[in-house]
Amino acid sequence: MARPTPLSGFPEWLPAARIVEQHVLDSVRRTFELHGFVGIETRAVEPLDQLLRKGETSKEVYVLKRLQATEDEQAEANLSAADKQGLGLHFDLTVPFARYVLENAGHLAFPFKRYQIQKVWRGERPQDGRFREFVQADIDVVGAGALPYHFEVEVPLVMAEALGALRAVGVPPVRILVNNRKVAEGFYRGLGLEAVDGVLQIIDKLDKIGPQKVAAALVADLGASDEQAQACLELASISGEDLTVVDRVRALAQTHGVESELLDEGLVELGALIEAAAVRAPGVVVADLKIARGLDYYTGSVYETVLVGHEELGSICSGGRYDTLASDGANTYPGVGLSIGISRLVSRLLGAGLVQASRSVPSAVVVAVTSDETRPASEAVATALRARGIPVEVAPAAAKFGKQIKYADRRGVPFVWFPAGLGHDGEPVAHQVKDIRSGEQVEADPATWEPSADDWWPRVLPVG
Amino acid sequence: MARPTPLSGFPEWLPAARIVEQHVLDSVRRTFELHGFVGIETRAVEPLDQLLRKGETSKEVYVLKRLQATEDEQAEANLSAADKQGLGLHFDLTVPFARYVLENAGHLAFPFKRYQIQKVWRGERPQDGRFREFVQADIDVVGAGALPYHFEVEVPLVMAEALGALRAVGVPPVRILVNNRKVAEGFYRGLGLEAVDGVLQIIDKLDKIGPQKVAAALVADLGASDEQAQACLELASISGEDLTVVDRVRALAQTHGVESELLDEGLVELGALIEAAAVRAPGVVVADLKIARGLDYYTGSVYETVLVGHEELGSICSGGRYDTLASDGANTYPGVGLSIGISRLVSRLLGAGLVQASRSVPSAVVVAVTSDETRPASEAVATALRARGIPVEVAPAAAKFGKQIKYADRRGVPFVWFPAGLGHDGEPVAHQVKDIRSGEQVEADPATWEPSADDWWPRVLPVG
Repeated sequence: MARPTPLSGFPEWLPAARIVEQHVLDSVRRTFELHGFVGIETRAVEPLDQLLRKGETSKEVYVLKRLQATEDEQAEANLSAADKQGLGLHFDLTVPFARYVLENAGHLAFPFKRYQIQKVWRGERPQDGRFREFVQADIDVVGAGALPYHFEVEVPLVMAEALGALRAVGVPPVRILVNNRKVAEGFYRGLGLEAVDGVLQIIDKLDKIGPQKVAAALVADLGASDEQAQACLELASISGEDLTVVDRVRALAQTHGVESELLDEGLVELGALIEAAAVRAPGVVVADLKIARGLDYYTGSVYETVLVGHEELGSICSGGRYDTLASDGANTYPGVGLSIGISRLVSRLLGAGLVQASRSVPSAVVVAVTSDETRPASEAVATALRARGIPVEVAPAAAKFGKQIKYADRRGVPFVWFPAGLGHDGEPVAHQVKDIRSGEQVEADPATWEPSADDWWPRVLPVG
Repeated sequence: MARPTPLSGFPEWLPAARIVEQHVLDSVRRTFELHGFVGIETRAVEPLDQLLRKGETSKEVYVLKRLQATEDEQAEANLSAADKQGLGLHFDLTVPFARYVLENAGHLAFPFKRYQIQKVWRGERPQDGRFREFVQADIDVVGAGALPYHFEVEVPLVMAEALGALRAVGVPPVRILVNNRKVAEGFYRGLGLEAVDGVLQIIDKLDKIGPQKVAAALVADLGASDEQAQACLELASISGEDLTVVDRVRALAQTHGVESELLDEGLVELGALIEAAAVRAPGVVVADLKIARGLDYYTGSVYETVLVGHEELGSICSGGRYDTLASDGANTYPGVGLSIGISRLVSRLLGAGLVQASRSVPSAVVVAVTSDETRPASEAVATALRARGIPVEVAPAAAKFGKQIKYADRRGVPFVWFPAGLGHDGEPVAHQVKDIRSGEQVEADPATWEPSADDWWPRVLPVG
C-alpha cells in the first residue's frame, strides 16, 4: 500500500493539534453546561426530503447509498418510508435539532435549552476555513408556542463567555456583530421596498462587492429608487456599542419619512441587547446594521462573530432568532441559536501558529523499565500513580535509560521515574524521579509524589 | 410537517439518557488518558477501495454521492484520485487508523498509543444491540517494524480498568475472554489440519450451532477426521483463570501427538497474560480457547468481552493482535487493540434500566425571576454562582414562584434561588435558596454558597 495522501476538505489533526481541538471542545462544553444547556446528539443522517427543504443547499448534500443494496434486500430489511426515499448526511445541526424536537416534543421540557457538538458535511469546494467535513458547536433555546425575547440577549452572551474563556489559551478576542431583522424589514417596508428578502440578500454582499454595486443592484434588480438605495446603504453603515446606534437609526428613519411599528419594536429589542451586553460582555457585542444573514428563516436578532485580526476568515459563530424552527401542525416551536464553527476556528489557531499544546501525549510520567523481568515493578509504580489520577505510561522496552529518557522527551513528557531496585553494587536503590527539562533527579514515593498542577495534564497555551 | 418517526438502527437519546452516554464516554476517555493513550479523530470517510479491501464487509458500506454532482463540477473541484473513485463512511476505526498511521508515520512517535472515540456506520439489518450508526471507543498500540508482546497484556488490562471504573454507576461486571491465535494455529497444524482460517471460522460458530454441527462441518467442509474434529472441540472446551489452562492444553496436545513450536510460543504468551491479569484484574480476564474472532488478520492474542448476566448481547469489547496493521512497502506496523461498542453497551444499560442520571439538565440551581424588570438581578446571581463553577440557569419567565419551582422540578434541578429584593411589605428581603426536595429554605450569599458535591453536576447512578 502506497503512502496515502490527505483528502482536501476533510481536516485531520496530529496528536498535539488534536489536544488543542479537544481543549476547545471541552471548554465550550463546560460553558454551555454552566448555563444549563443540555447536551444531545442526533444521528448523522436525515431523510433527503428534510435536507432539501431549503433548495439553496441542495448541491451541498452528501447522499448515502448502501453498496450492492438490491430492491429485494431493501424490502427484506423492512426499511421505513424515509429510508427508502433516501438518506443524506446532515449539513448543519439545526435541521436535525428541529426534527429531534418534533419527534420527542412529548418528552422534552420547554423552553428547551440544548447544546450539540458534532460533525457536519457539505459537498462544497474546499477553501481556507471552509471544509467538507467539520465540527460545529451549537446552542439553541426553543420554546413551545412562544419564546420570550430575553433569550435573544442570553444566547450571544453565552457564546461571548464560551469564546472569551478561550482567551487564556491564546485565542484572539472576538467581536459579536448583532442586528435585528425587524429593524431592517420595518425600515425597508417603511421606505416602500416590499421585497425584503431581496434587499437583505443584496445587502449581505456589501463587504464583498462594495456600496456602489449594492446600490446598483438594489436599483436594477428590485426597482428601488436612488434615494431608497441610498437609505438602505446609510442604514447598513450604522454600527456601535451603545444606544446611540438606536438614536441614529431613528434619526435616519425620520429623515426618510419612515414610520413602522416593526422598526420601533426591533429598535427596542436591539437596544435591550446592547444594554445588557454592555454590562455582561463589555466591548464584545457590537450592533452592526449591515449584518443581514442571507437565510430567510430569521425573524428577529441575527448574529455573526469575527475573530479580531482575522476578519477575512469570515464569521466563526453565527445564528439568529427564527419564529418557526419546526411545526407539527398543533404546535410551532420558535427558537434562537448560535453555532460555532469549531473546525474553522481551530484550523486558524493552528495554521496561524497562535496556540499550542504543552506536550503531545497525556502522560506526565514515563516509568522506566530496568529489565524485562522487573517490568511488573514498573507497572506497579504506574498503577500507584494512576490511582491518584496522574497520567502515566511505562516505557516500551528495557532499553538503556538514555533511550528511555529520549522516549519521554520526544513526546514532551516532563518526568521519568526510575523504580526502586538493586544498584550495580547490589545495594538497594530507592525510587527516583527525574525532571528531564531541568535534569533534577530526586527520591520519591509512588504513594505520595505528584507533579505540579501545570505539569499534570497537557496544557494548551498561547504560542510565544 | 408531520411528527417524524425514528429511523431503525440509528439510535438517539433523550437528554437524561445522553447524560448516561456522555458519562460513559468521559469515563473511558479518562482511563485511556491515565494510561498515556493519545486521542485522535479521523474523518468519517475513506476511499472505497480501502474500505473494500476485506470483501466480507463490502455489503455494509455506505457509499457517498454528492447530490447533483456533474462530471464538469467534479473536474472543476479538482478532486483527488481517491475522491473521484468514490468515498464511503468508515465501518470501524481500525481501517481509518491504519491509513492515518501510514499517512502521518513521519510525524508520529512509535510505539504509538492512541484512543479514538467516534461514530461508525454499517448498512446492516438492525437488531438488538446491532445498529447502523454507533459509537466505538478504540485503543490500539502500534509499533514501527516490531511490537513487544507485553502490549498484548497491557491493552486488555486497560479495558478491564475502563469498564471496571463504570461499576460504580451500575454497569455490570465484565469478563474478558482471551485466546491466542498461535495456540489455535499451532494445535491445528500439529493435528494435520492446514486450513487454519477455515477451522477458526467454523469454531467461531460454536456458541451458535453447537459442538455436533461444528464437528460435522469440520469433517464435511475441511476433510477433517473424526478424531481431528474431536480434538478441535476439546481444545475449544478449555477455559479458566489460571495457569492450569496452559497445562490442560499441553496435556491435550500430548494425547493427540501434537508437537508445534508455534503452539509452545502461544502458550507462553497466553500464560504471561493470565499471570499478569491475575494480579492486576483478578477475576476479570479468563482464558477461553474457543474464542476465535472470525477475522483473518489476527496473529496473536484475541479478545472478546461479555457483560456478566447479559452474555446473549454478544461481545461489547473485542480485538486482538495483528502483525500487519498497515504497510507502506518500507515499513510494516504491527499492532494490538480493543474496541468498546459504546452504543451497544449504553443501549443495554438504558434498555434494561440498570443506570440512570440524577437529573436531565446540567443546572444545579434555577434562579427565580421576581419581575421582568429585575431579571438583571437574577442574572447577576447566576453569574456569581457560575464564576465559582456552579451550573445555573435563570427561570424563563417572571411567573408565580410555584410555577418557577415546577420548572426546576420537572428537570430534576435540586435548588431554586430567590434573589434579594423588596418583600410585599416593602422591607428588604435577603437572598434565599430552597432545596426543593426537602423544602428547606435558607438565607444564602451568591458569593459563597455552594451545593454539595453530590448535587453539583448531574450524577449517573445505579437504578434502585
